[in-house]
Amino acid sequence: MPPPIDPTPPPNAEAKTLAQSLLHLRHAALSYIGADGLPAISRIAFGLDAAGVPLTLISALAPHLAGLQAHPPCALLLGEPGPKGDPLTHPRLMLRAKAMVTAPDERPVLREIWLARHPKAKLYVDFADFAFVRLHPVDALLNAGFGKASRFTTDDLRNP
Amino acid sequence: MPPPIDPTPPPNAEAKTLAQSLLHLRHAALSYIGADGLPAISRIAFGLDAAGVPLTLISALAPHLAGLQAHPPCALLLGEPGPKGDPLTHPRLMLRAKAMVTAPDERPVLREIWLARHPKAKLYVDFADFAFVRLHPVDALLNAGFGKASRFTTDDLRNP
Repeated sequence: MPPPIDPTPPPNAEAKTLAQSLLHLRHAALSYIGADGLPAISRIAFGLDAAGVPLTLISALAPHLAGLQAHPPCALLLGEPGPKGDPLTHPRLMLRAKAMVTAPDERPVLREIWLARHPKAKLYVDFADFAFVRLHPVDALLNAGFGKASRFTTDDLRNP
Repeated sequence: MPPPIDPTPPPNAEAKTLAQSLLHLRHAALSYIGADGLPAISRIAFGLDAAGVPLTLISALAPHLAGLQAHPPCALLLGEPGPKGDPLTHPRLMLRAKAMVTAPDERPVLREIWLARHPKAKLYVDFADFAFVRLHPVDALLNAGFGKASRFTTDDLRNP
């Protein structure tokens, strides 16, 4: 049997602009597989590296660092409802990714990029148990309200 | 080898009150396993049934309904950062749950409860592709800021 056809269209210019704005938010919800093999969720700080690849800073004390190391596929939700209206009508980007802990020699560069966007992280960025983790995009679904969805490839996610 | 001891303490009265307030929010992020077996994430509308069991209303057109039916274990994130401060210092509840689609004969009662909390859902609550799904709690982690975590059992999650 052929695979089902995805009914979700690729993004138009407006959808790409909206996705870029959501990729510049400073936090996200992270869906990952926990140490026990079950779905888990955490709030994470969110940023981009110099090449625009999603990045987070995680403490080894948080359960998601071990989870992502054992099972790199994960998903992020970017975008929050405002105080008014149906929460399901507010735009959000669901990004599927593969997590990879960064090498220690990248730390000085990533630290500067991170603190420019997350100045309050200076309180803990240098703690030994914190690590920068890249979240390499696989694909994404933008939902800009009922009936307004687009499916992004990694190419679509890059800056236009 | 004995299982590792969970260093996260049980909730005190203040933590229980905070968790109850987060359980009364109207939306959440849902971590689930997608049809392809990989972690996925969606925003969902959130409510409680008459017995205080978490409840959501999902369209069959949304990928998470099929995902939850195939793989009921899931996790929810309740609570959002405000516009100021480090997003990781704002309280949130990470609830692990098992999803179960409700029976059709419960629909009239759940519909009334749902619309009382989500009046804008009257636009679609009666569409044939929408289903109420209970999210039966398994356990929860409340993170009320750095170093302020508590682990909730299902008993702890019930109204005090």
